[in-house]
Amino acid sequence: MKESGRKHGALSPCAACKLLRRRCAEDCVFAPYFPPDEPHKFASVHKVFGASNVNKMLQELPEHQRRDAVSSMVYEANARVRDPVYGCVGAISSLQQQIHSLQTQLAAAQAEVVHMRMRQFSSSSNAGGAMDMAVDQANMGESLWSC
Amino acid sequence: MKESGRKHGALSPCAACKLLRRRCAEDCVFAPYFPPDEPHKFASVHKVFGASNVNKMLQELPEHQRRDAVSSMVYEANARVRDPVYGCVGAISSLQQQIHSLQTQLAAAQAEVVHMRMRQFSSSSNAGGAMDMAVDQANMGESLWSC
Repeated sequence: MKESGRKHGALSPCAACKLLRRRCAEDCVFAPYFPPDEPHKFASVHKVFGASNVNKMLQELPEHQRRDAVSSMVYEANARVRDPVYGCVGAISSLQQQIHSLQTQLAAAQAEVVHMRMRQFSSSSNAGGAMDMAVDQANMGESLWSC
Repeated sequence: MKESGRKHGALSPCAACKLLRRRCAEDCVFAPYFPPDEPHKFASVHKVFGASNVNKMLQELPEHQRRDAVSSMVYEANARVRDPVYGCVGAISSLQQQIHSLQTQLAAAQAEVVHMRMRQFSSSSNAGGAMDMAVDQANMGESLWSC
């Protein structure tokens, strides 16, 4: 979808041009992504990346990728404004810790499943006929190796 | 730890001042974090955030937080250079997907543990004396609720 169209008419400059106090041209690179009713979006990316860098980064991308690029830059800029030391790298670090914790819990749960299967198997071998039903119910080998 | 000290002597400008072709002053804000032998670090943050923004962000932080801030900015800038559309937000999205997948696997493994405990309990009730040993081995209630 071509995104160079202006939604807000020639009389209403985009949020970027308004902040930069410049004329908002018909082909303004910011206008499709920074509407005048969302001034905070441009304010954040301007503070963190600078208008000139945002302009350059958008110009270097094909139009169909610019909306995603703006969204990710706004996300990154907001994270940096909230946390000037770690920005969104703080979120990455916290997600990595969460993954590590989940992997540990998953390994423990899977080990417990294996352990219980082994015990069930061993109990059924010892108990003989009385245990057949239990082993059958447990459906050995079907879900054990699917973990 | 005070980090204003220069490691590379007055004759060797830091990587930032070298790239910006300016005199590297004794109290240069970039010098402690952008040594001349790592020029790519400053090149990335300069391309993505702009030297003036990096300078401003560092000045707004106490000295003991600046090294972490530089590391996170270098990480973020490298991610944006590698992936100009999503930058490190791409990594966040991928980590979130990984967490979702691990949570699903963990829920399945924990459900299997609960299910096996229930079957074990039910089998032991049906099989009577012959099953006592198995129930005892399974150590009901100890690890089931710790998942």
